[in-house]
Amino acid sequence: MTKPYTRLDKDNAAVLLVDHQTGLLSLVRDIDPDKFKNNVLALADLAKYFKLPTILTTSFENGPNGPLVAELKETFPEAPYIARPGQINAWDNEDFVKAVKATGKKQLIIAGVVTEVCVAFPALSAIEAGFDVFVVTDASGTFNEITRNAAWDRMSQVGVQLMTWFGVACELHRDWRNDVEGLGALFSNHIPDYRNLIASYLTNSSGK
Amino acid sequence: MTKPYTRLDKDNAAVLLVDHQTGLLSLVRDIDPDKFKNNVLALADLAKYFKLPTILTTSFENGPNGPLVAELKETFPEAPYIARPGQINAWDNEDFVKAVKATGKKQLIIAGVVTEVCVAFPALSAIEAGFDVFVVTDASGTFNEITRNAAWDRMSQVGVQLMTWFGVACELHRDWRNDVEGLGALFSNHIPDYRNLIASYLTNSSGK
Amino acid sequence: MTKPYTRLDKDNAAVLLVDHQTGLLSLVRDIDPDKFKNNVLALADLAKYFKLPTILTTSFENGPNGPLVAELKETFPEAPYIARPGQINAWDNEDFVKAVKATGKKQLIIAGVVTEVCVAFPALSAIEAGFDVFVVTDASGTFNEITRNAAWDRMSQVGVQLMTWFGVACELHRDWRNDVEGLGALFSNHIPDYRNLIASYLTNSSGK
Amino acid sequence: MTKPYTRLDKDNAAVLLVDHQTGLLSLVRDIDPDKFKNNVLALADLAKYFKLPTILTTSFENGPNGPLVAELKETFPEAPYIARPGQINAWDNEDFVKAVKATGKKQLIIAGVVTEVCVAFPALSAIEAGFDVFVVTDASGTFNEITRNAAWDRMSQVGVQLMTWFGVACELHRDWRNDVEGLGALFSNHIPDYRNLIASYLTNSSGK
Amino acid sequence: MTKPYTRLDKDNAAVLLVDHQTGLLSLVRDIDPDKFKNNVLALADLAKYFKLPTILTTSFENGPNGPLVAELKETFPEAPYIARPGQINAWDNEDFVKAVKATGKKQLIIAGVVTEVCVAFPALSAIEAGFDVFVVTDASGTFNEITRNAAWDRMSQVGVQLMTWFGVACELHRDWRNDVEGLGALFSNHIPDYRNLIASYLTNSSGK
Amino acid sequence: MTKPYTRLDKDNAAVLLVDHQTGLLSLVRDIDPDKFKNNVLALADLAKYFKLPTILTTSFENGPNGPLVAELKETFPEAPYIARPGQINAWDNEDFVKAVKATGKKQLIIAGVVTEVCVAFPALSAIEAGFDVFVVTDASGTFNEITRNAAWDRMSQVGVQLMTWFGVACELHRDWRNDVEGLGALFSNHIPDYRNLIASYLTNSSGK
Amino acid sequence: MTKPYTRLDKDNAAVLLVDHQTGLLSLVRDIDPDKFKNNVLALADLAKYFKLPTILTTSFENGPNGPLVAELKETFPEAPYIARPGQINAWDNEDFVKAVKATGKKQLIIAGVVTEVCVAFPALSAIEAGFDVFVVTDASGTFNEITRNAAWDRMSQVGVQLMTWFGVACELHRDWRNDVEGLGALFSNHIPDYRNLIASYLTNSSGK
Amino acid sequence: MTKPYTRLDKDNAAVLLVDHQTGLLSLVRDIDPDKFKNNVLALADLAKYFKLPTILTTSFENGPNGPLVAELKETFPEAPYIARPGQINAWDNEDFVKAVKATGKKQLIIAGVVTEVCVAFPALSAIEAGFDVFVVTDASGTFNEITRNAAWDRMSQVGVQLMTWFGVACELHRDWRNDVEGLGALFSNHIPDYRNLIASYLTNSSGK
Repeated sequence: MTKPYTRLDKDNAAVLLVDHQTGLLSLVRDIDPDKFKNNVLALADLAKYFKLPTILTTSFENGPNGPLVAELKETFPEAPYIARPGQINAWDNEDFVKAVKATGKKQLIIAGVVTEVCVAFPALSAIEAGFDVFVVTDASGTFNEITRNAAWDRMSQVGVQLMTWFGVACELHRDWRNDVEGLGALFSNHIPDYRNLIASYLTNSSGK
Repeated sequence: MTKPYTRLDKDNAAVLLVDHQTGLLSLVRDIDPDKFKNNVLALADLAKYFKLPTILTTSFENGPNGPLVAELKETFPEAPYIARPGQINAWDNEDFVKAVKATGKKQLIIAGVVTEVCVAFPALSAIEAGFDVFVVTDASGTFNEITRNAAWDRMSQVGVQLMTWFGVACELHRDWRNDVEGLGALFSNHIPDYRNLIASYLTNSSGK
Repeated sequence: MTKPYTRLDKDNAAVLLVDHQTGLLSLVRDIDPDKFKNNVLALADLAKYFKLPTILTTSFENGPNGPLVAELKETFPEAPYIARPGQINAWDNEDFVKAVKATGKKQLIIAGVVTEVCVAFPALSAIEAGFDVFVVTDASGTFNEITRNAAWDRMSQVGVQLMTWFGVACELHRDWRNDVEGLGALFSNHIPDYRNLIASYLTNSSGK
Repeated sequence: MTKPYTRLDKDNAAVLLVDHQTGLLSLVRDIDPDKFKNNVLALADLAKYFKLPTILTTSFENGPNGPLVAELKETFPEAPYIARPGQINAWDNEDFVKAVKATGKKQLIIAGVVTEVCVAFPALSAIEAGFDVFVVTDASGTFNEITRNAAWDRMSQVGVQLMTWFGVACELHRDWRNDVEGLGALFSNHIPDYRNLIASYLTNSSGK
Repeated sequence: MTKPYTRLDKDNAAVLLVDHQTGLLSLVRDIDPDKFKNNVLALADLAKYFKLPTILTTSFENGPNGPLVAELKETFPEAPYIARPGQINAWDNEDFVKAVKATGKKQLIIAGVVTEVCVAFPALSAIEAGFDVFVVTDASGTFNEITRNAAWDRMSQVGVQLMTWFGVACELHRDWRNDVEGLGALFSNHIPDYRNLIASYLTNSSGK
Repeated sequence: MTKPYTRLDKDNAAVLLVDHQTGLLSLVRDIDPDKFKNNVLALADLAKYFKLPTILTTSFENGPNGPLVAELKETFPEAPYIARPGQINAWDNEDFVKAVKATGKKQLIIAGVVTEVCVAFPALSAIEAGFDVFVVTDASGTFNEITRNAAWDRMSQVGVQLMTWFGVACELHRDWRNDVEGLGALFSNHIPDYRNLIASYLTNSSGK
Repeated sequence: MTKPYTRLDKDNAAVLLVDHQTGLLSLVRDIDPDKFKNNVLALADLAKYFKLPTILTTSFENGPNGPLVAELKETFPEAPYIARPGQINAWDNEDFVKAVKATGKKQLIIAGVVTEVCVAFPALSAIEAGFDVFVVTDASGTFNEITRNAAWDRMSQVGVQLMTWFGVACELHRDWRNDVEGLGALFSNHIPDYRNLIASYLTNSSGK
Repeated sequence: MTKPYTRLDKDNAAVLLVDHQTGLLSLVRDIDPDKFKNNVLALADLAKYFKLPTILTTSFENGPNGPLVAELKETFPEAPYIARPGQINAWDNEDFVKAVKATGKKQLIIAGVVTEVCVAFPALSAIEAGFDVFVVTDASGTFNEITRNAAWDRMSQVGVQLMTWFGVACELHRDWRNDVEGLGALFSNHIPDYRNLIASYLTNSSGK
């Protein structure tokens, strides 16, 4: 059963962050808030670390949905930022699609809130448009596990690849030797267990 | 991996509500009753809001299965109502299939009790008959998670799309600008967190 | 091991609803939002049904905590309403304690958000002040189960009685014959399974 | 920390089965229905096996609450059967208390539906009246775990002993030599794992 | 996306019960024992009710695996019974395959212990041999959920249909009018909630 | 609130291992079998390490309950071994109590299968007899969590101290300097995470 | 049932942080690592914010247990730091007890790893020594829930008060008016939901 | 729906153990450590038992990731051991691929830490290279269930077969008669329930 491995390539990937807004985040209940916040910021940090073109978009940010999470704005001050006037599926917004196409990348890494709408809709549209789509499941949140599982099934049926931020980072990096420090810092900042491993290691190996 | 996005279209969709009866509801244990009731009524409200042709059907409603939940009858006083004399799979009932076909719609949104029978059987029949089928997982209930997961797998294998009422509403609406108030009211009535967001927003932005 | 049964008495009980505010509700993650909303409204409805003196209080309602849930205001238009200027423990607010004492009741039924603070603090204060305290656990919410369990233990240690809205209603009512219709309506409105039982019963016994 | 062991004694114990009615059972969601049914019947069988005086009582059995589970009626055809006209706490019913006192027993083994009302209320009353009370937790059911835990805490605070049907059987029996076959049959009928152990044992030891 | 509905047909289906032995059952920990026992017996009862040819097989029944569960032997005294001398995959046993083929049926309903071996291996072999395979997930058990989920995925990949005993019964029966009493009795004996519905219904509708 | 700290003392403690028999272990479902086996052996190892007098007892070991787990017999070849002829509560067996008293210890560390019977009964008897009782919860197992929680509550009510094998080891050892290697080996053998810490430490600090 | 409310008082409380070491943290599995890290740092931040005397202690920090988490050292550069040479119970270390007594405070807020040892042992000793003890349950971690629950029960039995960092902060602060900004910042930094509430509030109320 | 059964064949299978290192193991939180350790060692034992060519590989074993688990080194002293200098996907390491190809086997059995990276990456590469891939899910671990489920989905999409060590052992062995003792010993050493079955069986059948 030979099947090609559609593998993330840092020279051919872009990141789409969809509707991580302060109001909408209160709807996310399938992941604990501390963990979810960490996952979203980890994804942002890895996008920046790998210098992936990143696109931010929000839905009705002046209403109850609330503004984009401040850390995301700060991490990507130069990123295209599409405040959609009403389209629920970001792919229905021409500026968004234009921005995506302007990156010239074929692989789209998508995360957002809520999974079955803000993530799944553009993911399905992007597949139809011929892109390879990688959804970062743990940086995407929704109401509960039933909803999450249904959304995953719908996306998986058409070929979306379900990943997590850690898997994305590892697949993009390929080889630790490309930059041990950089990847180590990314993990240390977002995986407490890994940070502890490093701290123990440094202490022990320094003979202190 | 290009695959067409089979997307819900409010001009081409009908809703089938299968066996939401007061007796059968006592069998549902994979979703909490408060939440399940809310989901079913949310689906009903959205069907009405989008003016989707809706078909009601029951199984043995004069026996232990009990009458159709009163709120559904009240929401759809004019809807075709097929009290099946014995067929377990609603699709085996000619009147039901006739009513479905009479809607002229190609997309069927199905929910019911219990998932692996009253939902899965007509879903599989409808796929075979050439319809696009969208099952509303969170407005469908059954005995436990093992049963639910097995039923999902069986339906997914043949191409049923697994959704939730919120995803259905968003995919049908497409753009908030079509009617902000209407969709907002639907969400406010069925998502306490969203209602709270709106209440906080109105209070804060009014400077009160 | 003889121990007196400190039993709720509708002529000697008051209800304290503490900080059920639209913003704070987004912090509640130990109970599902649909269920929690239902529990809070059920408690409100029973307080009204039994004509128990009820006191509303909020914390910083003009800030991020948000306004009191609208349904509570509407249910108790005449109730004492103490918008606390800063005290975290409602019992530290003189007006609140005055309002409690003005009811002339010895039994206090308390619910609020979040459990370990807005509920536990006044509960512990009220015990110290000689009241009998009954906490409505399922109309009180907090961040997670660890927090809830710790708060329950702290309250239980000093004699707080942990109850739920259904138990409170039953203990207050004592005998169905006092008003079958009234209690039945309360249950039917807030317990879907009970509503279904009644619907099945009415249909079946009417021979329809 | 010497404390007397208040131990079940088959010559001094009575069993109270409160409101195991077909309608009310649909409210029980803190125990799986297959397991709950088995536990209730196991308790009934042990009461009969140990010839403990047993009292049956129901609440509103001609309404939505439904009739007493048929198996219980059949197991105890001669038992006092108090169909309460309205009292929610069975202990508020004079006939019930009379029947309890007529047994002449000091130890009361109580189970029922729902835990925080039909079990907890008479349990608290019986403690106040000087009885030793043993609640059979796994033959008592209620809406969810929050409710169960709160009810357990309230009962434990005043000295109710929380047990399960298996523990009750073992504490009453004291010594297998009193009747190996009888107790073995009870366990075999209600504990599939134990039945399997016996079947394996008999097969293996018979050299078959 | 038209796909044929491979539907169970009582004239074309056989049941294979694989290794429900008293010793092996102690390995099953992904389903509660009370519920699992009930599911297995329900499947047996439905096989008998629909007069489906049924084949029993065991592995090393004279060793630690233990004898076949007694109830299964009693339900199918005339069924082919293949005590395999060593083959782990029942399909590797010629007598077993001969017995299967002798039924002349194309649809195989399989359940057993443990899921990923005794069920999955013959299921995969039967698919390869051209049969339609329906696995009764809730009458099959294994060590834990990880194992179950992996086994389900492996079977689903090649087209096994995952069902439960209730779904199987309903799909085979097609129409209640074929025999209301019979199907009702099957459900009443194995679904406590359904038994309660019937009891309430009979009591209420009899006006008693 | 000053209360004396009843602290385990290796010169004043004995261990009672009750009914860890191969058949009875199949009843344990509140702890995963891999973990439970490890916990029981860890408790045995610590009893041996601290040279605590240890008493073994079994119930009906020639019947379905099965023989004592072989590792326990091997760890304590010289320990008093009371094969009870029928008493369910080990404390009802005179030889057992004699053996306990012969140790001359006041502190009893008890573990067994199943928690609410084989552990709770002798624990309650020992408390009544004036001993300090420490139950090793994670080396004691039973049918499910409801049963465990009820048993814990009953024991806690009379002053039993609920511990785990790790806590017992630490409280007995008091100071690592008493024997770093010995305690380290005990932990390394029974806590994979600790073993890994040590392995990482040794590798790193050796500069390898 | 009047009982005094032993309430945290910022002028009479000290914080003891026991063994939050990088190696030991890998043992913590009853709380998710992201959440646990956040809870520990939140407790540290509140200790600093309220200027509570804080004592740090570690066990064998040059071995596999690893160094103290770096953030704690940095937050309390001047705090007494007792690297215990071997005592498992910190209270067995004279320097530690001296440091505790030197604070002159009667209320001790304790957190550490692992709960049943590093937290429970000094908590029980401190109770015996006449202190009021408040354990911060969510900044204390251990192997699993069984262990946590057993440890909580042991501590609760002797009067330890079980709290969480949020409850501690609120009880110490008493009144928002003491410093709205400061407490708000503490919450915003450690409660993502609260941070979002504030962000939404600021955006909305600024009319932006 | 005929589909070939790609079945494990002991003459055509090799085992790849990827990154079971002492540091990385602290990241594994989707399986309990006692159980996970047992599963990994069981897989190692079965590889040795079936004499499957086995390849060990590690990532940065001199840094925080830590050394390979000692038991694995000891079980396979002669196995190819590739300490990768930096490649995250083992398949990117030429020596590793060479070692795999040198086995001459077409079926690859893969397990490792963490699932979505160290297992999934080489699994996807191996599929692309034309191998049949069997992932041992329960000897592979990762951060949490979301991550595991996403990784399973990604691997399943391209045809990886998800198994467990027990299923692998059974599929390789085919027939107990090939060696009853050997397979029995493997199971007895790694499945406590099975060990107990054997012990009970031997005791009972020996008439002791």
